[in-house]
Amino acid sequence: MLSPNVSAALLSPRSVALIGASTDLSKNSARPMRFMRKHGFQGRVYLVNARGGSVGDETVYPSVLDIPEPIDHAFVMTAARHVPQVLADCARKGVPVASIYSDGFAEIGQQGAQAQRELIEQARRDGLRVLGPNSIGTANAHTGGVVSVNAVFEMDVLPRGDISLVSQSGSMMGSLLSRAAARGFGFAKSVSVGNESDISVGEVVDSLVDDPDTRVILLFLETLRDAQTLGTALDRARAAGKPVIAYKLGRSEQGDALSQSHTGAMAGNDGAIGAFFSAHGVMRVNVLEALLELAPLARAYAAARPRRGAANLRRIAVITTTGGGAATVVDNLGLRGFTAVAPPAEFVTHMAGRGLNIRSTPVIDLTLAASSAQYLDLLEQLLQADWCDAVLSVVGSSAQFHPQLAVRPILECAKPPGRPLAAFLAPEAGESLSILLGHGIAAFRTPESCADALAAFFESPDEPISCGSQAAVSLPDELPRHGPLNEAEAGLLFRALGMPMARSQWLRQAGQAHDVAYPVAVKVVSRDILHKTDAGGVRIGLADAEALSAAMESMSGDVARACPQARLEGFLVQAMERGLIELILGYRHDPLVGPTVLLGAGGVTAELMPDYALRLAPVSREQAMEMINEVRHIQLVRGYRGLPQAELGPLADAVAAFSRLACLPGQPVAEAEINPLFVQRDAVVAVDAVAVWREEAGGVAEGVQPAA
Amino acid sequence: MLSPNVSAALLSPRSVALIGASTDLSKNSARPMRFMRKHGFQGRVYLVNARGGSVGDETVYPSVLDIPEPIDHAFVMTAARHVPQVLADCARKGVPVASIYSDGFAEIGQQGAQAQRELIEQARRDGLRVLGPNSIGTANAHTGGVVSVNAVFEMDVLPRGDISLVSQSGSMMGSLLSRAAARGFGFAKSVSVGNESDISVGEVVDSLVDDPDTRVILLFLETLRDAQTLGTALDRARAAGKPVIAYKLGRSEQGDALSQSHTGAMAGNDGAIGAFFSAHGVMRVNVLEALLELAPLARAYAAARPRRGAANLRRIAVITTTGGGAATVVDNLGLRGFTAVAPPAEFVTHMAGRGLNIRSTPVIDLTLAASSAQYLDLLEQLLQADWCDAVLSVVGSSAQFHPQLAVRPILECAKPPGRPLAAFLAPEAGESLSILLGHGIAAFRTPESCADALAAFFESPDEPISCGSQAAVSLPDELPRHGPLNEAEAGLLFRALGMPMARSQWLRQAGQAHDVAYPVAVKVVSRDILHKTDAGGVRIGLADAEALSAAMESMSGDVARACPQARLEGFLVQAMERGLIELILGYRHDPLVGPTVLLGAGGVTAELMPDYALRLAPVSREQAMEMINEVRHIQLVRGYRGLPQAELGPLADAVAAFSRLACLPGQPVAEAEINPLFVQRDAVVAVDAVAVWREEAGGVAEGVQPAA
Repeated sequence: MLSPNVSAALLSPRSVALIGASTDLSKNSARPMRFMRKHGFQGRVYLVNARGGSVGDETVYPSVLDIPEPIDHAFVMTAARHVPQVLADCARKGVPVASIYSDGFAEIGQQGAQAQRELIEQARRDGLRVLGPNSIGTANAHTGGVVSVNAVFEMDVLPRGDISLVSQSGSMMGSLLSRAAARGFGFAKSVSVGNESDISVGEVVDSLVDDPDTRVILLFLETLRDAQTLGTALDRARAAGKPVIAYKLGRSEQGDALSQSHTGAMAGNDGAIGAFFSAHGVMRVNVLEALLELAPLARAYAAARPRRGAANLRRIAVITTTGGGAATVVDNLGLRGFTAVAPPAEFVTHMAGRGLNIRSTPVIDLTLAASSAQYLDLLEQLLQADWCDAVLSVVGSSAQFHPQLAVRPILECAKPPGRPLAAFLAPEAGESLSILLGHGIAAFRTPESCADALAAFFESPDEPISCGSQAAVSLPDELPRHGPLNEAEAGLLFRALGMPMARSQWLRQAGQAHDVAYPVAVKVVSRDILHKTDAGGVRIGLADAEALSAAMESMSGDVARACPQARLEGFLVQAMERGLIELILGYRHDPLVGPTVLLGAGGVTAELMPDYALRLAPVSREQAMEMINEVRHIQLVRGYRGLPQAELGPLADAVAAFSRLACLPGQPVAEAEINPLFVQRDAVVAVDAVAVWREEAGGVAEGVQPAA
Repeated sequence: MLSPNVSAALLSPRSVALIGASTDLSKNSARPMRFMRKHGFQGRVYLVNARGGSVGDETVYPSVLDIPEPIDHAFVMTAARHVPQVLADCARKGVPVASIYSDGFAEIGQQGAQAQRELIEQARRDGLRVLGPNSIGTANAHTGGVVSVNAVFEMDVLPRGDISLVSQSGSMMGSLLSRAAARGFGFAKSVSVGNESDISVGEVVDSLVDDPDTRVILLFLETLRDAQTLGTALDRARAAGKPVIAYKLGRSEQGDALSQSHTGAMAGNDGAIGAFFSAHGVMRVNVLEALLELAPLARAYAAARPRRGAANLRRIAVITTTGGGAATVVDNLGLRGFTAVAPPAEFVTHMAGRGLNIRSTPVIDLTLAASSAQYLDLLEQLLQADWCDAVLSVVGSSAQFHPQLAVRPILECAKPPGRPLAAFLAPEAGESLSILLGHGIAAFRTPESCADALAAFFESPDEPISCGSQAAVSLPDELPRHGPLNEAEAGLLFRALGMPMARSQWLRQAGQAHDVAYPVAVKVVSRDILHKTDAGGVRIGLADAEALSAAMESMSGDVARACPQARLEGFLVQAMERGLIELILGYRHDPLVGPTVLLGAGGVTAELMPDYALRLAPVSREQAMEMINEVRHIQLVRGYRGLPQAELGPLADAVAAFSRLACLPGQPVAEAEINPLFVQRDAVVAVDAVAVWREEAGGVAEGVQPAA
């Protein structure tokens, strides 16, 4: 994490050197000086350019070393080839942090990546922290310290507020700030992290947790480069009660490929990132503007979010004077799983007693009936009611033509941190939006953003589980420690974790004796064959030794033909098992977020109709039960249409046990899978086992605790 | 449909009577006069109020009958109880059409509905056409004829254009117009249809097809009240080359839980409405503002839409100066199935020859390299390229600060009706939006709207198929003509359509002889039992007569216990069949859109994981094949993971044959279902049959052609 010194220099510098600043005022590199003058920066700003000279009254220093005072923050805008020397000078000068706008580094490919690595090695040696390269800079709206070339800061007034933004895209930082400013949103800090060669998103978030001006943190992400640091920072934000809202690209594969080429980021699995966000309490939005529009709700009503493991809260009381506008937002809410809840009879009676007649309909429509005072009274009563989880006021044409009048009842009765109150404005109504947002009330411009923001807000967050002090798993000595395991070995590994595996015996040779009761299944054992069935390496329902022997013989031939290169290591004789349903239980060390566990519908259609739950691993038994609740296929054994039901405790135990693959010291497993895992009436049983060690972990085997 | 006379009076009145207009200028009913004065209406406007008198220079007539000139269009704002007399007076005066703003009719419940029925009966007798009640009115932006109380017309300038809007919500008409006006969108006509007691959405659309000022028709719908009229009008719009774009609420309504079949439960009304839109060439958007933002694209590039049955076009060339903004919209496009397509090597070479170096990446990023002239040249070359289906220009901060410069290349090279060109503006950039829209170029404010609009635009439309001149289906005499059929009877019905049914025989009594070859299945026959399996009324795999006899006996007991009220009508002995996969084939007379046919994944999980295709019935064999392509489950027999493949021609034939249930005269079938329909290697076979006559069709049997 950043030291307090670096953190302050990055986010709130008192003296800034603009290195490579052009004396041509039409150039981008002349912008930061102009921006800081315009937005009233009271600190000291120095221009640095090898050519020296002056611009107006300003001296241009040939080098940062020529500046007569200490510098908190250097902003580097020179050509890439000059950057190493510039950083060396900064380090010599004792500058704690440099932000590098220059491009030509990792984002352009191999050669740039190498230059970037060398640059950062040099900076680390010199004790200089670096933001970027390819960062469009940072801005502190409270001090006017706009250390950035982003054109958005051309705006005449830089609104101040308590929301801070960390963005992996410099241009989107500008686009978001411009959209926010247009509706009167104030920001505290904005940071473009560029290539994240040194200072990462997580470190910036960590600094913002300690920033008294920041109450909500927004993230615009293209990838995750250091999930561990970010996770730690997010947990601190959660503990500090500072909500974090994220919008992340890469939800579609196409987008992900683009992020890769755009920033030099590593491809990742969006589902794993979703699990990461959830585990760390981040509200993830899917509609771009919801990133902004959710902020006031998150800030004011953080206490109203569901707790970990709680059911999502889904009942919205909708009050309106515009039936069509309300119907539109209710339809969108319905698509996100919300119910517009009709007031119960007692509440209707209660309101009648207060002089207002309402109907018990999903939208409480006051178009004709109510005075402004009655509208206010109804809102106040709704905010105290126990039959809804939030109140949404949908405002019609008055929001456009009489903004002060239209929003007054909302302003008067919003009383955080009670029940959440938000507004959707049906017409174009910029002034009403600004008034509401200016008073810290969430006001939505589109029905899609409204529904998306509420969905993110009310999604029950998760919590990462540590491996804890449970005794380290003892792995059998005979387990190989690199590459793929064969099925028999993977079974040993899973058994060591406590997984219920079908009874089986590994015969190194055909003809060897075994004591698995007939009927049995038999499979070839080979770490070189991933899809045994496709290779003709599985036979089932063998009634006796004769059938088994014949199966082994014919299988040997089939497999030799299908996979001539595969080394056969014998046969696995396994008890025949069956289940009410079959599931997949998977483990993957995700390249971005680390260990994850997946529970999903199994069978041949698993990939055609994905139906799964994913979490960071390990998971607790309670989390495993939540995963079970998310997989629709499992409803088949939960009383669906009179089908036989299963006891699901053993399944939860199995998921939790399997997820402890993440607890092997060094997290040495790359991927592991049980497919199928049979769910029986009062048990589960695994009839297949795949596991592959992580090669890149290096010295994998050493990390694993051998059996005593 | 509306006569030309009524149509003109509704949409372009030359003289308007405002009945119930208040003399108090602060009242809503005083608005229309003010709006028409403000927006320069050159026709004649008369105030009518029982109290008479005057307002300023304006005479207030006690009755429409007192007005000395003919009236084209009466706008009725009186209390509901006065409306019948007002309409009687209008009819006597010879007014062709009255729009009723007054509420207190069908929207308030039974009593209001009755009043509405009586009102319309009276108007029909008198030859007066009625818009509403509960209509907020109509507006003609070209004449300033604002026959409406909607507050949106308080705007100082009413922009004119060639887009017309028909809305079932009066308040959303205003909200949409306000959002449109804010970005410089011009409208031609706007019509709020209110309760649609007489003049329906379809009739208004039909009139707009003939309106020379209207080139695009937008629909904001809450339901469909007269699908047949609307369908006819939509087909005329398609033939006239006037695009229709619809946004419809009710997407989140639960499927019709009361429906007895999977067909109704899975798709619900909204699915049927989607099929209706597709059949009539309507572009359906799901993001509210896409309704507006798609209009220019639809208008300029209608010829570029995919033709019926063609594959959807999915390749977008994205050109940008803002990497992050482009990545954001590309991610959204990816979620909607689009590919941001990288220029092929030849194109890169081609551009290099023109002096511009680009890279073969999914987003063509010109942030650093290009001049405005180069940007323009690249756009022009892309618009002629054959490797993309549309070009999207993503504009960054210049759109905010230098709108004229930013949009110039786009304005210069857009050359409809060639390849579609559209723009997404990453920052808040109202002026750029207005300039682009003012020039008829689609410009999107949010990435979600952009992706949604392109998805609607490029969705391959369908076409309704008529039942044609094929000989009417001859139905066996013994078929009952009301209520549910039993399985044996339903099988007869389906066979008559040409469906391949499993060989079977209906034994009226246990012990009766049959000639179905063993092994067989047996089921109880009873029109009172919908779910035979749940009632214990199915036995399968019976090897011989003895087993069959025992099965019948035990089944009789089980069914009598499970369904003591059910009348048993014997047993159906059926040949045992199996298939590679099992499907559901359903037919439903949807209450809103009429006959529909559904093909979906079968089995116990059908409702847990809906996977189906739905069309208006009947369908052609080609349409059936398109349905087959949409059902993911069917991929299991199309070469998925080495599984056995099936010939799908017989399935297409079966779907087309079954869909001709819609061609029985009078469309007498309410619901019908085959579940399961087995798909075999080179055949399909139905092993179950459910059919229920439409009771409400009245005298159903008469409509059906009995066997000769």
